[in-house]
Amino acid sequence: MLSLQDRDVHQCDSGWVPVFVDQDKSIAVMSIGFLLEKPDDAVVWRGPKKNALIRQFIADVTWGELDFLIVDTPPGTSDEHISTVESLRPFKPLGAVLVTTPQAVAVGDVRRELTFCKKTGLRVLGIVENMSGFVCPHCSECTNIFSKGGGEELAKHAGVPFLGCVPLDPQLTQSLEEGRDFLQEFPKSLAFSALTDIAKHLLAEASTCSS
Amino acid sequence: MLSLQDRDVHQCDSGWVPVFVDQDKSIAVMSIGFLLEKPDDAVVWRGPKKNALIRQFIADVTWGELDFLIVDTPPGTSDEHISTVESLRPFKPLGAVLVTTPQAVAVGDVRRELTFCKKTGLRVLGIVENMSGFVCPHCSECTNIFSKGGGEELAKHAGVPFLGCVPLDPQLTQSLEEGRDFLQEFPKSLAFSALTDIAKHLLAEASTCSS
Repeated sequence: MLSLQDRDVHQCDSGWVPVFVDQDKSIAVMSIGFLLEKPDDAVVWRGPKKNALIRQFIADVTWGELDFLIVDTPPGTSDEHISTVESLRPFKPLGAVLVTTPQAVAVGDVRRELTFCKKTGLRVLGIVENMSGFVCPHCSECTNIFSKGGGEELAKHAGVPFLGCVPLDPQLTQSLEEGRDFLQEFPKSLAFSALTDIAKHLLAEASTCSS
Repeated sequence: MLSLQDRDVHQCDSGWVPVFVDQDKSIAVMSIGFLLEKPDDAVVWRGPKKNALIRQFIADVTWGELDFLIVDTPPGTSDEHISTVESLRPFKPLGAVLVTTPQAVAVGDVRRELTFCKKTGLRVLGIVENMSGFVCPHCSECTNIFSKGGGEELAKHAGVPFLGCVPLDPQLTQSLEEGRDFLQEFPKSLAFSALTDIAKHLLAEASTCSS
């Protein structure tokens, strides 16, 4: 998505140097993908090895001074989530953003993730409803392919903020597919305004917490 | 999806009795969901506990005589996949069906799953491309929301059968949402013909292998 295939992580005296997305070094990325010899290599790892790597990604990468560290986890409440929460606890993480699609089976998973956050004492910054409606580029009619409103309803029910709906947007998926800069190229798309609203909300939240 | 919320697994002398979808007992289901006290309970389990449960689901459930045992795994190549393949090995499984969405990031995951199958000696029955195009119900124009053709290209590249494309279909998602019988209610939908073609292909494959 960030056009970082074939990029390598380098080792320096103080640890692993992350991969930078741009020359300004405004975004630093670390991923197990960078450590594979070939892009087809399967990471056939049970929990303990994954947990060790997660700890290394936090402790042994020369992150430098960061404004935000964003950890993108798989769905669920298993090894990756437990290890991430445990490893980040000393750094007092701001909280978790839970992302769901609107339909009941997906919302059910996120309900269990809410329970996980409560159990582990991780604050929930809010819920995002992704893949929420599709506006046909040919006739401008909207179809709720994966139902609608499940994320908002869950947020209400759980008493956590609802951060917004991100619609299915072929311009967004195409940008990710081709590693192009969606924010630069499609500032008028529906997903653009949804994503910037969510980002603004989270930035406001972060500045309240740090002040 | 099968309207089995609130159903319980019972214990009998010979093991756990699975949950049956219909009166004919034509489909038996086992899921960790049936073992939770409340539907919101998070299963905060590291690998070893998950692995033990997977083994129990295969060994301790009174499955009876089955035509097919279908194991729906999460994406990836981790504990669940290793344990499932290891536990089923004595029963000589027919193989794996790999499901991807069309875009490059999803196809990349499935490429690694192909490597996993090769490593573990699990035959690949084929690749399905899900969420493959959306035909607007208002204007009948097709939009490839998540790109198109990634699954078919991967199958060609890997030399495994391509089983077909399943389009995004609001009638299918709505049926799953409401626990209704999609096959009975929407026999003319695009997803119906795609899914039945895939099922026929797999049935033919199974009868070749057993004969």
